[in-house]
Amino acid sequence: MALAKKAKVKLRKLIKPELPGGFRDYGTADAILKQRLLEKVRKTFEDFGFDPMETPAVERTEVLTGGEKESGKIIFNIKGSREKGSDSSLRFDLTVPLARFLAANPEVPKPFKRYQIGSVWRGESPQVGRYREFMQADVDIVGSSSMDADSEVIAVMYQVFKNLGLNRFVINISNRKVLNGLPEFAKFPEKKLFEVLRTIDKTDKIGQEAVKKELGKVVGKKAQEKLMEFLSISGDTKTKILRARDLFKGIKVSEEGINELIEIVRNLNAFGVEQINWQINFYTVRGLGYYTGPIFETYLNDLPEIGGMFQGGRYDNLVMAFTGQKIPAVGASLGVDRLFAGLDKLGLLKRKATSVKVLVLNLTPALREEYANLTKTLRSANINTSLYFGDDKAFQAQLAYAVKKEIPFVVIYGEEDKKKGVVTIKNLATREQREVPKGNILQYFKK
Amino acid sequence: MALAKKAKVKLRKLIKPELPGGFRDYGTADAILKQRLLEKVRKTFEDFGFDPMETPAVERTEVLTGGEKESGKIIFNIKGSREKGSDSSLRFDLTVPLARFLAANPEVPKPFKRYQIGSVWRGESPQVGRYREFMQADVDIVGSSSMDADSEVIAVMYQVFKNLGLNRFVINISNRKVLNGLPEFAKFPEKKLFEVLRTIDKTDKIGQEAVKKELGKVVGKKAQEKLMEFLSISGDTKTKILRARDLFKGIKVSEEGINELIEIVRNLNAFGVEQINWQINFYTVRGLGYYTGPIFETYLNDLPEIGGMFQGGRYDNLVMAFTGQKIPAVGASLGVDRLFAGLDKLGLLKRKATSVKVLVLNLTPALREEYANLTKTLRSANINTSLYFGDDKAFQAQLAYAVKKEIPFVVIYGEEDKKKGVVTIKNLATREQREVPKGNILQYFKK
Repeated sequence: MALAKKAKVKLRKLIKPELPGGFRDYGTADAILKQRLLEKVRKTFEDFGFDPMETPAVERTEVLTGGEKESGKIIFNIKGSREKGSDSSLRFDLTVPLARFLAANPEVPKPFKRYQIGSVWRGESPQVGRYREFMQADVDIVGSSSMDADSEVIAVMYQVFKNLGLNRFVINISNRKVLNGLPEFAKFPEKKLFEVLRTIDKTDKIGQEAVKKELGKVVGKKAQEKLMEFLSISGDTKTKILRARDLFKGIKVSEEGINELIEIVRNLNAFGVEQINWQINFYTVRGLGYYTGPIFETYLNDLPEIGGMFQGGRYDNLVMAFTGQKIPAVGASLGVDRLFAGLDKLGLLKRKATSVKVLVLNLTPALREEYANLTKTLRSANINTSLYFGDDKAFQAQLAYAVKKEIPFVVIYGEEDKKKGVVTIKNLATREQREVPKGNILQYFKK
Repeated sequence: MALAKKAKVKLRKLIKPELPGGFRDYGTADAILKQRLLEKVRKTFEDFGFDPMETPAVERTEVLTGGEKESGKIIFNIKGSREKGSDSSLRFDLTVPLARFLAANPEVPKPFKRYQIGSVWRGESPQVGRYREFMQADVDIVGSSSMDADSEVIAVMYQVFKNLGLNRFVINISNRKVLNGLPEFAKFPEKKLFEVLRTIDKTDKIGQEAVKKELGKVVGKKAQEKLMEFLSISGDTKTKILRARDLFKGIKVSEEGINELIEIVRNLNAFGVEQINWQINFYTVRGLGYYTGPIFETYLNDLPEIGGMFQGGRYDNLVMAFTGQKIPAVGASLGVDRLFAGLDKLGLLKRKATSVKVLVLNLTPALREEYANLTKTLRSANINTSLYFGDDKAFQAQLAYAVKKEIPFVVIYGEEDKKKGVVTIKNLATREQREVPKGNILQYFKK
């Protein structure tokens, strides 16, 4: 409506066709590829028995912030232009809405395996490469405390990458329970744990020596040495686990965590998740205070700098804020736009200007009906087909359009062809041109 | 994070797991069906040579309102919680973002055929059955003034319904140009046109007699009679068009409109759009001041009361507000949630609690690896499969879970089966149970 009104008011100032900072379009070529990527992700999730679910973009602000006013820093509030105040906001992840849904629908049979693919919004200051709207693809298993569930989440993460044709990625696996034993193990006060974890988390980035130095500022010399003993765990999976078991002997929470990791390792082998694509990595920490058990994080080997692609873990406090009860849950979240950017950087995105396969040229008004019929025939065989609609009807203009749009085939049909009962199909890539009987047009494209 | 913090603060007030008014979830059963519906819609759009495109949920408010402050009534403003003011809002349709995109990317080859499927938001007061977030699926052809384009939009609307298995629907077709000749035809002042159209638009709802009465209040008696002459046009397509041509003889704009309709009719026949599913309906008006040529609107025959499902028309002022230039465009917008509600009312939605086909029972810890293998085998054949993860491992509990989740098949495998080299597959619908050699499990499901 607004646009039409504008059309009448002639000399009005033109509006700049710009997006707000931190937002972006996916033009045709990118949208085609993103669409295919999402189809593969969705199919993999469904193969694994995850069902879709949808929650709205908007939630009550209190639901998102957990009732804490100060924690609402990164969210977008929304306000109907007729309304005074606002108590609604755009979701910043898909996990809080899942928790709200499950608390509101306790009858849902458990274990509940759902996936959700959707946009989330964060009101952070826009920076290069950081967007305020981005798409997440989440899988979660709610209502199972078995390590089978954690293993399955890792297996589906693995399979998503494999199905996307990626081989050079690694899933880092750790367990918060192991880390929670660190104060007892290294004998430093419990309240220093978060700071210690924050420091350990930097190991992959800044290296062991720098971490050692930083740890020295947080805890005493003896604790620092013990922590370095832990951080120097290395070797293959078996060696790492045996060494950890040795170090944490008698520390109950860590022992529990290590036993969970042993179960996961056993499952991953059974599920056929190749060892080359995962490792136990005790430096992996992930969000403080959120996860309660195993944690996972995926990197592309060739692009460690763009960060985690698909991450998650066990968080048994999911619906706590709504019901006061614990419920076991484990899940992971794929950053779709980040993965897209990663695939692009690796040169794995072969952009095409269109998914249209055939352009039927619109040459002779008298043959309109036959063009329509040819078009219909191709479409009914699921061959994406356009009939030329441009205002410039010259043959050369129509051909130039196909070339510009990167449509691979054009169908040419004129009065002469009609007499002969043929159509001419031109392959614009090979420039090969072939006459085929009009009735055989589908056969041509089937090969 | 917020949730985890909460977990520590014990006696805190619980948060109500409620949605804001006007928003809703799609639970698993609905989301599965909506997903399938969208896949069909998307496939149909692509068959017709439309390519996907994505714009963000958020646009600059000025872009959405066309720079008019007062027109921002129904939109949602968004504001990062750190920010002072707001000049961004949630999109209320997918057409304005398309216009903004095209103005910003003038190099895009024309004709440009794109589809976009996404949520839009309107800050209206929530009412029963009216939501503040809903999904639209739009097709548009930009850069063609040919009636071929308008016809194709109608053809794709038709094919979407057919591909969804719907036969009882009708696409009403009219032309704003015909209506624009009414002041000259019935001799009433131009400035009364909008009011006259608003009244005519009610014909299908309140009937001709009531419309006649209302017209009497807007225009003089003579004009009223002439308008009724127009409104009484009836019969088959040919009769309607001939009668209209007769009535509007010499009124240039209307004649142009009628000629456009004649071209569309000819094309629809060529495209195989069955006459039973469309009609010329001169009462169809659609949004005032927006459309500039042909207009279309689709109703389900059995549910006229829930309103238009898929509607659009030609709007050649698309990018005017940004560039000051006209660009020919025609398109239509499918109301996905309304269509979903319509299919539901018609009893056409067969809900299933899950899309999982097979549950592999998790009976004996020693067979873990074999369960994982069976699961993997089924998944690799794209059979949606879950391995049971519940904390209650009793056989009956596992079976009850499958029944509750409506999973059609369970795979049973224990020590005895292992010795015999078989698995037992139980069809929960027929209660039929069959032993098959372990290696033949895929064959069982292939039939």
